[in-house]
Amino acid sequence: MGTSVSDEPDANESDIHSLPSSRRHTENLPSLYKVGFPPRKKLMSEFTETLKETFFADDPLREYKDQPKSKKLLLGIQSFFPIFNWGRDYNLTKFKGDVIAGLTIASLCIPQDIGYAKLANLDPQYGLYSSFVPPLIYAVMGSSRDIAIGPVAVVSLLLGTLLQNEIDPVTNKEEYQRLAFTATFFAGVTQAALGFLRLGFLIDFLSHAAIVGFMAGAAITIALQQLKGFLGIQKFTKKSDIVSVMKSVWGSVHHGWNWQTILIAASFLTFLLVAKYIGKKKKRFFWVPAIAPLISVILSTLLVYLTRADKDGVQIVRKIEQGINPSSVSQIYFSGSYLTKGIRIGIVAGMVALTEAVAIGRTFASMKDYQLDGNSEMVALGTMNIVGSMTSCYVATGSFSRSAVNFMAGCQTAVSNMVMSVVVLLTLLVITPLFKYTPNAILAAIIISAVIGLIDFEAALLIWKIDKFDFVACMGAFFGVVFVSVEIGLLIAVSISFAKILLQVTRPRTALLGNLPRTTIYRNIEQYPEAKKVPGVLIVRVDSAIYFSNSNYIRERILRWLRDEEEKVSMKDMPRINFLIVELSPVIDIDTSGIHALEDLFKTLKKREIELVLANPGPVVIEKLQASHFMEIIGHDNIFLTVGEAVMTCASKAKEEV
Amino acid sequence: MGTSVSDEPDANESDIHSLPSSRRHTENLPSLYKVGFPPRKKLMSEFTETLKETFFADDPLREYKDQPKSKKLLLGIQSFFPIFNWGRDYNLTKFKGDVIAGLTIASLCIPQDIGYAKLANLDPQYGLYSSFVPPLIYAVMGSSRDIAIGPVAVVSLLLGTLLQNEIDPVTNKEEYQRLAFTATFFAGVTQAALGFLRLGFLIDFLSHAAIVGFMAGAAITIALQQLKGFLGIQKFTKKSDIVSVMKSVWGSVHHGWNWQTILIAASFLTFLLVAKYIGKKKKRFFWVPAIAPLISVILSTLLVYLTRADKDGVQIVRKIEQGINPSSVSQIYFSGSYLTKGIRIGIVAGMVALTEAVAIGRTFASMKDYQLDGNSEMVALGTMNIVGSMTSCYVATGSFSRSAVNFMAGCQTAVSNMVMSVVVLLTLLVITPLFKYTPNAILAAIIISAVIGLIDFEAALLIWKIDKFDFVACMGAFFGVVFVSVEIGLLIAVSISFAKILLQVTRPRTALLGNLPRTTIYRNIEQYPEAKKVPGVLIVRVDSAIYFSNSNYIRERILRWLRDEEEKVSMKDMPRINFLIVELSPVIDIDTSGIHALEDLFKTLKKREIELVLANPGPVVIEKLQASHFMEIIGHDNIFLTVGEAVMTCASKAKEEV
Repeated sequence: MGTSVSDEPDANESDIHSLPSSRRHTENLPSLYKVGFPPRKKLMSEFTETLKETFFADDPLREYKDQPKSKKLLLGIQSFFPIFNWGRDYNLTKFKGDVIAGLTIASLCIPQDIGYAKLANLDPQYGLYSSFVPPLIYAVMGSSRDIAIGPVAVVSLLLGTLLQNEIDPVTNKEEYQRLAFTATFFAGVTQAALGFLRLGFLIDFLSHAAIVGFMAGAAITIALQQLKGFLGIQKFTKKSDIVSVMKSVWGSVHHGWNWQTILIAASFLTFLLVAKYIGKKKKRFFWVPAIAPLISVILSTLLVYLTRADKDGVQIVRKIEQGINPSSVSQIYFSGSYLTKGIRIGIVAGMVALTEAVAIGRTFASMKDYQLDGNSEMVALGTMNIVGSMTSCYVATGSFSRSAVNFMAGCQTAVSNMVMSVVVLLTLLVITPLFKYTPNAILAAIIISAVIGLIDFEAALLIWKIDKFDFVACMGAFFGVVFVSVEIGLLIAVSISFAKILLQVTRPRTALLGNLPRTTIYRNIEQYPEAKKVPGVLIVRVDSAIYFSNSNYIRERILRWLRDEEEKVSMKDMPRINFLIVELSPVIDIDTSGIHALEDLFKTLKKREIELVLANPGPVVIEKLQASHFMEIIGHDNIFLTVGEAVMTCASKAKEEV
Repeated sequence: MGTSVSDEPDANESDIHSLPSSRRHTENLPSLYKVGFPPRKKLMSEFTETLKETFFADDPLREYKDQPKSKKLLLGIQSFFPIFNWGRDYNLTKFKGDVIAGLTIASLCIPQDIGYAKLANLDPQYGLYSSFVPPLIYAVMGSSRDIAIGPVAVVSLLLGTLLQNEIDPVTNKEEYQRLAFTATFFAGVTQAALGFLRLGFLIDFLSHAAIVGFMAGAAITIALQQLKGFLGIQKFTKKSDIVSVMKSVWGSVHHGWNWQTILIAASFLTFLLVAKYIGKKKKRFFWVPAIAPLISVILSTLLVYLTRADKDGVQIVRKIEQGINPSSVSQIYFSGSYLTKGIRIGIVAGMVALTEAVAIGRTFASMKDYQLDGNSEMVALGTMNIVGSMTSCYVATGSFSRSAVNFMAGCQTAVSNMVMSVVVLLTLLVITPLFKYTPNAILAAIIISAVIGLIDFEAALLIWKIDKFDFVACMGAFFGVVFVSVEIGLLIAVSISFAKILLQVTRPRTALLGNLPRTTIYRNIEQYPEAKKVPGVLIVRVDSAIYFSNSNYIRERILRWLRDEEEKVSMKDMPRINFLIVELSPVIDIDTSGIHALEDLFKTLKKREIELVLANPGPVVIEKLQASHFMEIIGHDNIFLTVGEAVMTCASKAKEEV
């Protein structure tokens, strides 16, 4: 019946009558009873293995194993340019899917780009530029088939905020743009560097919960920013926090608002939301919300053109530079005070962009089940932004909404990105002038309807249900963004994430174990009220590796368990505690500080005439106990394979003493 | 025979014939087979408990529980002024012990203080000042009975280095001293703040290994600095790294060295080392090395006085300010550019001093077995340095060497510190003039013989044996100090310690499990070569809590195990893998990201027609699985209490499919 008992690491014998039997068996099959020492590794191999697990966890070189040189070269090229990989078996049917998907995301991205550029305080054409070059680069280098590349709301906002802290985008437009390209360049460098140095795992330190909160906060902030265009307000605050935005909104109620603008914006927003709803309800109508923005742009533009509503104060785009991306190589700051600023901003924006892109990539990769090499993916994204920064693009990355549309439209490969960028190219060459009469209100409406999707109530609710601490991180990031600023929100998100890690490694769990009646199973007494304490013996389980960061805590915690127990004992005048059994099953590793903590514990207990007994140390632990000679100090016969055996021996010892 | 098998978390049934029996039992004693859900805690109580474990792990308020107000007040006072606690049952025998110990450490500290002050680039009397006031404060507030308070070598060196990076101690003596007091003030503030805010655990982030390396490096550096006095060199480098020191030593070989100085220094150093050796050999001669420094000071001073060797270029102390500490309140910078510098230096010096003091406190507390409240200890040390900074003292803390002597001399309480400080007081009032002819060479010899003790070969060797990564941290700190500077060494120590933590939380262990023949025990196949894989089933154990920082790695690692296994299988054309069993015994916690990782894993496997099966999830995990509805997704009947059960079910399913 052993099955019954092994639902805890400290599971021991199971048979109710196993006390005697187990003893017998111990003689019968000794081979089974020793803790197996893993074959001692050579230092070098140990070192290389650790290195491999840390930096090459995804084992990128395995295809290269025992392959001819030529093959290796090919594989090498393919790993940097996956297009050579999927390109070979590319066919017409796939192409069809890609074209449809490409056209769909193009129709979605064009109006979004124009709006997002505003968030970054840049002229509309820069949004379009960023949807032309980067997707092409990515299509050649990227390994995700579903991600849709281009400017995204959150990164645009973040970049805009960080940049305008340094330079005023209105008065010093020239410098502002230059700094934007500089930041984009170093964002790319950061991303590529993380990939090359195989430090991709660093972005895992931004927890899912923090991202959810951050995204929602950013969405609210962006939506609030749109009130300017939505209400046709002329003078609007530069700050992004809800308080100052609301102030300048209400401040301009009487003179600032423009009813025609509001009318257009409101009606088209309703249209967009309805389209969104339809798309949600019926999956096969996914294209409705996808093309709705473009339709509303066309309609509203016509409307304004015919009614000349711009004469009545309806603000319009006025002018989008025609033609393809001009070079911006010469504009990047490679010296001076702006260099360092550019680097700082670039790193932040680059990391955030990376987090978003990688999250998307992973999601769809697991949906379609294909391997995604996180690190070479980062190299691709980095290169794309570096090239982008030299062709008048600002930070581009994978867009949640557009990638989803891309996926639903049945994209097969990165070709859909190429199709999109061709469409954007044509737009830049031919139809930008037609945007002249497009009212800003529409862009506002489009952005609002777009960012709403970033607010994920279900996720937040789930986080609340699952992990309260995560929820704190989530809310911290959210309120940080909404009430202070996007970078503060980000800072809060990161620091709370780190705080959690520190907490995890400084304050591990410990549990008091008791005996389940009629068995020799020992369980957490909090979890199993029926578990009974063994008189004269205290059994504590440590639920974590013992490292320098928690060794002192664990030592003191164990002593506290003991102290509390002794008080109880003395009150109920039960037999005093003679043995402290520490169950080590979950302790997978221990370092020098940990060993020292055990030694200190041993000394302290010795002073109090309490015997320290260890139960079930894992392979690594037992190895280190021996290496450190703590085994001799505590004595081999005080280390047991199971709590059950330990208790039995303690009991018999106690008898002898009596 | 269950005992035999429970030496691993994944231990299952034990009886060789337990497959059928276990089934039977499952019907018989169902009560035992459920994973116990701990009684659901209220959010508030859960929150407060976490808070308590984090900041009040040492449970400082327990004495206050159900006590009358007056008693509570008394306890409150006692917790801040332990003297009221031990003072009441203080008696003559204890006093005797304290007096002897006090006199011993006084004789040891006076010459050391004069030397250490030099390390901090301060006049000798400041060393003595720092051995007068701080010990008195500590005696009243501190809770350690054995620690000996005063200036110490490492902190003096660190402070000196950091300060002279800002101000030249020779040309701007005045500002330098003021900044020293400012730094000392904020060092105290830092220490007290850490105590008040109960953030004491922060110092645990400097790992034992890093400290060993840092101390040894500092010792070497300090010894090298002494070559100036030892060889009687006039012009000496300000840098502390070994290269530049050696340069200026060899550079001055022909003209710079002074043979009389060398003679005195060498002979007395030998004397000191012999004394040290005797003390080591016979514990009852501990007082020999303790008083040797004072003796050699007296002898050498007489010698120089009689021979007037100072005329022959033997450098002497010349002058120590007579009289007790002047006030230095007005000298502390509370504004201006030096304020921030003072704060920065203070924080660093304060933390290092704290680490040393707490380490000492813990060591002796566990040797004599008394409880030490880390946080109120920090408050005591902080207050002592704050007061010190106002009475011309620089950062004082617990000294390893003197505390050991104090302990061996049989100190009973902090009164030994009082005795010492009284002796120092008398020294300041009466005999400082007599130090006029004391040769600097002697101080050099004394410091060298003192710091040698900080180099702990055994510890380093042990670290090498136990944990290679710790050894890297140790060596990194060591070489950082020796070849660059003490603060760089410290930086390296801290960053490596952190790197280890990050590694720990990003790259947890996973293991492939196999079946031990003739049992249903499943073990790590690397550890147990005899363990056999189950055809068609892959069993992976995750050896850590699954958090956002490692969830992606764990997911990908499991998939990698699967991929590698599938390759092997296809090569040997064995039955393809239909089931992936993830053993969760060691997984004590999981957060939202972790749940998502499991969901992704589930989806991916589903695509590949592989069934995901969970074995033995812990209470917290199962609770969260349910909260997140992942339990419904994967299906209750795919979660088993043991790997054994899981395998059995998989096997039967496989049969059905056939």
